[in-house]
Amino acid sequence: MNLKPLILASASPRREQLMNQIGLEFSVIPSDVIEDFSLALPPEAFTEHWAREKAKYVAENNPDTMVIGADTIVVLDKKILGKPKNIMDSFSMLQSLSGRTHEVITGMSILNISFGIDFTFNERTYVSFKTLSDSDIHYYIDNYNPLDKAGSYGIQDWFSVHIRQIEGCYFNVMGLPLSSFFSHYRSLTNYLNKP
Amino acid sequence: MNLKPLILASASPRREQLMNQIGLEFSVIPSDVIEDFSLALPPEAFTEHWAREKAKYVAENNPDTMVIGADTIVVLDKKILGKPKNIMDSFSMLQSLSGRTHEVITGMSILNISFGIDFTFNERTYVSFKTLSDSDIHYYIDNYNPLDKAGSYGIQDWFSVHIRQIEGCYFNVMGLPLSSFFSHYRSLTNYLNKP
Repeated sequence: MNLKPLILASASPRREQLMNQIGLEFSVIPSDVIEDFSLALPPEAFTEHWAREKAKYVAENNPDTMVIGADTIVVLDKKILGKPKNIMDSFSMLQSLSGRTHEVITGMSILNISFGIDFTFNERTYVSFKTLSDSDIHYYIDNYNPLDKAGSYGIQDWFSVHIRQIEGCYFNVMGLPLSSFFSHYRSLTNYLNKP
Repeated sequence: MNLKPLILASASPRREQLMNQIGLEFSVIPSDVIEDFSLALPPEAFTEHWAREKAKYVAENNPDTMVIGADTIVVLDKKILGKPKNIMDSFSMLQSLSGRTHEVITGMSILNISFGIDFTFNERTYVSFKTLSDSDIHYYIDNYNPLDKAGSYGIQDWFSVHIRQIEGCYFNVMGLPLSSFFSHYRSLTNYLNKP
């Protein structure tokens, strides 16, 4: 396998799509890190911790390559919602989000071990749902796959009809805050390319 | 051609994609209406006027079918920006939007002549750009096609790296406010299906 100069350490097809959207050349190598939701950290630090763990896992075998890790969570009433465990969990998550505003936080890590780059940041977006009826929730769970998504919804699929408004970076809700990521990535790359 | 029970009177591939995203069955029949930017109306009324003209154009030949028209504009300092006329116009539009917040307004029309449905609404989203360098603008114009986009940018392409934040419906910026459209469409459809 010919490695590109950048590795995305994530199995998320949405992150891959977003990296393609901004024209980056990269390889995908998902990490085997399993997120431990019992880790007692504030939400921002929690996402940065797991983003860094994911990047580090892949970077250790690829020390000369820039590796990107990301972790996205949904926060409601200061409680972190990860991916739902099962259909019932998915139902109650969506019910708890109905008619309210929650936060989506993505932590990101940019690592290049050989060059000593170990940078993390996080981005927050506010998302407001319309009120969901039970039949809306059933329809969504039956026809889409909410189990692989933090907070149990995908802003880019049919669920978009229930998003009343967002405040912040839209792509952050999809799992990768494009605008801030690109700024950081570009300055780090410029730094590496300096003579 | 077998007509679906819903017609999108728009040539925009982005609107078609959004309608597909929420699982609607529809046919596409673009109107031949040419927007006249000299029309002296406030921005919201301007978009609703042209959305309705587009829908009406197609509905007149399809009186029994629900027809949807849409019109999206960018507003900066109370001035309406449509699609750029040429590359120079595109450059100066993007320069004027750099580092600032502008409004994107989409007007929508839902028409069904036989049933007397003639409904219009509009939705506004605030979009904040990062500061763009001249080379960022040149790169974008050279590699993408800004000429067919109101305000000269596509939020869903490479340009997304320059969107600092949005406030409101993201899909509205792509040309179709999914959440509010779906609400209105669903209530009108329920009304039609009442015995």
